[in-house]
Amino acid sequence: MTARSVVLLSGGLDSTVTAAVAALEGGSALLHLDYGQRTRLRERRAFLEVADHYGVPESRRLLVEADHLARIGGSSLTDASVPVPEGDRTHTGIPNTYVPFRNAHLLSLGVSWAEVLGAQAVYLGAVEEDSSGYPDCTEAFCRAFAAAVTAGTPPETRIRIETPLIHRTKADIVRLGVALGAPLHLTWSCYQREDLACGRCDSCRLRHDAFAEAGVPDPIPYVTSDA
Amino acid sequence: MTARSVVLLSGGLDSTVTAAVAALEGGSALLHLDYGQRTRLRERRAFLEVADHYGVPESRRLLVEADHLARIGGSSLTDASVPVPEGDRTHTGIPNTYVPFRNAHLLSLGVSWAEVLGAQAVYLGAVEEDSSGYPDCTEAFCRAFAAAVTAGTPPETRIRIETPLIHRTKADIVRLGVALGAPLHLTWSCYQREDLACGRCDSCRLRHDAFAEAGVPDPIPYVTSDA
Repeated sequence: MTARSVVLLSGGLDSTVTAAVAALEGGSALLHLDYGQRTRLRERRAFLEVADHYGVPESRRLLVEADHLARIGGSSLTDASVPVPEGDRTHTGIPNTYVPFRNAHLLSLGVSWAEVLGAQAVYLGAVEEDSSGYPDCTEAFCRAFAAAVTAGTPPETRIRIETPLIHRTKADIVRLGVALGAPLHLTWSCYQREDLACGRCDSCRLRHDAFAEAGVPDPIPYVTSDA
Repeated sequence: MTARSVVLLSGGLDSTVTAAVAALEGGSALLHLDYGQRTRLRERRAFLEVADHYGVPESRRLLVEADHLARIGGSSLTDASVPVPEGDRTHTGIPNTYVPFRNAHLLSLGVSWAEVLGAQAVYLGAVEEDSSGYPDCTEAFCRAFAAAVTAGTPPETRIRIETPLIHRTKADIVRLGVALGAPLHLTWSCYQREDLACGRCDSCRLRHDAFAEAGVPDPIPYVTSDA
């Protein structure tokens, strides 16, 4: 079992386009984290369908269940008693959908697996521009984490942290996905529904605006036609 | 539920002495990671008994089960088919007991929980000197990770990574534990047995030599009296 890279794949728009970028060099392994988020089953389906699309064998798929992030809490995504924000994004600061330090867990998983697989890169679909403002989606964080990887893995290990979308706009990500033939119809972005995208949460609105700006029809179904 | 610090507590010698250091400022929360290691049940018992010793309430204890580290593999501690090294430590390089990038997972857990608790420090019992040579137990790694914490958590968050043992010798750690009244009799260090310490694995030998050098009787039972 070897792989060139490990892609952290939630099954959303950004991580799927990131998987399409990684697929250009071939030999990706795909890792999915179920951390007890509201739409965990729908996201898992998206992960599996994207993995099927790219023909990734079972030995290069890893599905991690981490209910402890839900137990730790601190986010509306994992705490059903805290409403997910809807409507116009008039709030300032970091929204309550932030899962404390989540991307450090994702990257740690990716690096551990990359060590064992002999892979030389971990791909993360973090987007700093045009995003929800999560501190663990910034270039500063990803660069600092990469330095920790260099220091904390064996000397003969060389694992890069790749964030090909970090400074792209969401519309640009849609365009890139289309150009690379990424299976955007298989992706799921909604924070709160699993049957039809709600069209109202931050994630749906960012996605909707991105497709609209890119002039590309969003292939997934929404509750309202004008989402 | 508030806490001043989160202590990453395996229940071994180093993490228990680290908990004793953290206890000096009071209000510690204790986090234990079960990653599918051979002696997981014995280590869990040590964690719970140390927590009881310090009177830590249930709301400030977190037991995380992460079987995915065992599934990722790459270590004799989580793979029963790979023997744990015994005998004189004549091997060079990183021993096969290294669990790839494990401390990044531990620190990520500690930081996520510290964010939710409002704690300002995460304590890790990493020892760089006089240790097994794991790259994720070095000061360089811990400093780099601390920089990632600063970059990857909200601006109002201030979480320090505290490694009070990082440059102490093992004998010095025993002396410090005795001086602080740490419950060394409740700790477990053996990599491969859960009833009596084997006295032969790296962890037992480091521990044995440390107590001997400190001139302190080791209070836990060994298979052989001259371990």
